Amino acid sequence: MRIIVLGADGYLGFPLVLRFLAYGHEVVGVDNLSRRRMVREVDSWSAVPLADPFERITAVREEFPEYVFRFMDLTNTEEVNYLFYKHKPDAVVHLGEIPSAPYSMIDSEHAVRTYMNNVGGTLNVLHAMRDFAPDCHMIKLGTMGEYGTPNIDIPEGKFEIEYRGRKDVLPFPKQPGSFYHASKVADTINIQFANRIWGLRVTDIHQGVVYGITTEDMERVCDCVGKDVDDRLVTRFDFDETFGTALNRFTAQAVIGHKLTPYGKGGQTRGYIALRDSMHCLAITLENPPEEGEYRTFNQLDETYSVMELAKKVVDVGSSLGLDVEIWDHVENPREEAEEHYYNPDHENLRKLGFKPTMPIENEIEVTLERLMRYKKRIEEKRSSIMPRTKWDPRK
Amino acid sequence: MRIIVLGADGYLGFPLVLRFLAYGHEVVGVDNLSRRRMVREVDSWSAVPLADPFERITAVREEFPEYVFRFMDLTNTEEVNYLFYKHKPDAVVHLGEIPSAPYSMIDSEHAVRTYMNNVGGTLNVLHAMRDFAPDCHMIKLGTMGEYGTPNIDIPEGKFEIEYRGRKDVLPFPKQPGSFYHASKVADTINIQFANRIWGLRVTDIHQGVVYGITTEDMERVCDCVGKDVDDRLVTRFDFDETFGTALNRFTAQAVIGHKLTPYGKGGQTRGYIALRDSMHCLAITLENPPEEGEYRTFNQLDETYSVMELAKKVVDVGSSLGLDVEIWDHVENPREEAEEHYYNPDHENLRKLGFKPTMPIENEIEVTLERLMRYKKRIEEKRSSIMPRTKWDPRK
Repeated sequence: MRIIVLGADGYLGFPLVLRFLAYGHEVVGVDNLSRRRMVREVDSWSAVPLADPFERITAVREEFPEYVFRFMDLTNTEEVNYLFYKHKPDAVVHLGEIPSAPYSMIDSEHAVRTYMNNVGGTLNVLHAMRDFAPDCHMIKLGTMGEYGTPNIDIPEGKFEIEYRGRKDVLPFPKQPGSFYHASKVADTINIQFANRIWGLRVTDIHQGVVYGITTEDMERVCDCVGKDVDDRLVTRFDFDETFGTALNRFTAQAVIGHKLTPYGKGGQTRGYIALRDSMHCLAITLENPPEEGEYRTFNQLDETYSVMELAKKVVDVGSSLGLDVEIWDHVENPREEAEEHYYNPDHENLRKLGFKPTMPIENEIEVTLERLMRYKKRIEEKRSSIMPRTKWDPRK
Repeated sequence: MRIIVLGADGYLGFPLVLRFLAYGHEVVGVDNLSRRRMVREVDSWSAVPLADPFERITAVREEFPEYVFRFMDLTNTEEVNYLFYKHKPDAVVHLGEIPSAPYSMIDSEHAVRTYMNNVGGTLNVLHAMRDFAPDCHMIKLGTMGEYGTPNIDIPEGKFEIEYRGRKDVLPFPKQPGSFYHASKVADTINIQFANRIWGLRVTDIHQGVVYGITTEDMERVCDCVGKDVDDRLVTRFDFDETFGTALNRFTAQAVIGHKLTPYGKGGQTRGYIALRDSMHCLAITLENPPEEGEYRTFNQLDETYSVMELAKKVVDVGSSLGLDVEIWDHVENPREEAEEHYYNPDHENLRKLGFKPTMPIENEIEVTLERLMRYKKRIEEKRSSIMPRTKWDPRK
């Protein structure tokens, strides 16, 4: 297949490119490199050092000479049109969005930037698909955070509802918890509309929080666990409060002897999935496209955990590796969110297509901790980026 | 009260400024004058000739010397911050958005422009309220079109829902019918979030389609029906396919002997409200603010009609005025929408606060037709802007 990966320099995008190339697909990677800039902006860096973009592409092309990378910004309508006109992809995996809730909550400029980048880019992609690749399968990365934490079960996308004696099948109501999450809801609404009026075929991935440092493809291609490493072929690993997600941040903290920082009561429960399993799910989705004109939602997660459960797992696994890990007594929650709540999302669609989690979460934590220890000094150096700075309500 | 009216040069905004000034409020009008530019862009103009912006403001200030007008764009974060810092309003009426579904469907650039203007502007306003006027009452103009046409009753904003044996009160699912409508849904989601985390008090107006050419304030101030007119103190009246709404377009067509153009089967049913009643509703909303920290939704409409019903009313009223009005046999629908469907929106909240429609719709049609006849030549001159050009799917 001919596949465009938007966000090909990112945490998920880079290993996904390796996966698709290894499977023999033609791959065009696209990125504006904004993630590198934004992590610098919050005065941090990836724990795993990254090769410069050109070197990274060169390294991929040493093994896969046909790999094409395009440096471009999805908010540029003309360039997006040319991309689809030129490559006429069978599938596009859209990971090309600003992924951080705290970043969108810094101030109005960051909220607007997140919105304009994410929603503006997606609008351009939808129009370009319509005009130049109408049969293309869009695999769009949304987030479980679009649903918020309602007091009822969360279906995958739509649900049948009875109200005052009449019935309809409607999109599940969304209650996002940050302007970032809200931008993903806006994407979903625009994509559902584009599907309805233009018949574009779409899989809307509502993904849980991703954790982990490596994938089978990275391990195969660059042999990055245990043996010598091609440092040009690893993916980033963020641990700062803005771009690091809960479990990844905990493992980085464990490695440098920083107390783990679940926020508030720690009862915030979310769906989680390992990076390697995210790759499996996206590959399964690619291989099982929707029907012509179909829009479907996959809740892409393995299990749900509270952040306190995850912190405790890191304590246990860390101890078994000889690390002395403690949990901070009480970190004031910078977010406005329920700290104890009902949470029960469906996640059957991908399992029906054959998804099985690769390993228990404890093993993935172990792999991550072991690998992260090599980068202890880098994490240490940006230690000050770990504690929460971005408050949902800065007046408090 | 000190009130900021965003979109003060627009169809609703201008007469609303006159209303609030007449009631003795301090009013700051804000506009970027984009509506004038966009109507020129689609090669049309207002049937009612408008004074140049400076002359218009001067005319208002002849009667209300304390009126302040600021020319600014809501996507400029710094200027919006200064606006709220400087004036610390008790209320802000946010009409400052691009209001056209067809405009947003022209191409990706227009979709993005609509989104960035509407959602970006509102994000700036919400942050500025938080930082400089946290007790301010935001009256935000959304649209009934956010709901789409579900097969169940439409509540005002939220509804209690039972699903798999559990209950919650959730926002009603939105199914917008254009990227314009989608931008309003995104606004609503952002505003609900801002209310939840910052406690901003908001009335989210989900307004039906507005029709009519005059209001009591325009009549009082400029004496515009029957007697001499101060042409500087009238509001615009668009009749082109992009900015003219269904009933207004029909009345303009009737005046120049153009067959009326309900699209498709004409069974598309929506809520409608007269311009003068929209003013009453907004004034009622202003006088009855929400509690501290409250978010509420008002479905602002008088009655629901199908477009065919409205076309027939214009035929009848037109005939009684001696106009020869006919309905086009079948105009191919440029939109992708249900042409026959269930539609039953609640609209009790404003009635509970005292709203009563001023007059039957037939009378408003009569007033509109009589006044429009003066501008027959102007409508005639832009006749080519009336028939639908913007297709929801341009490939068809």
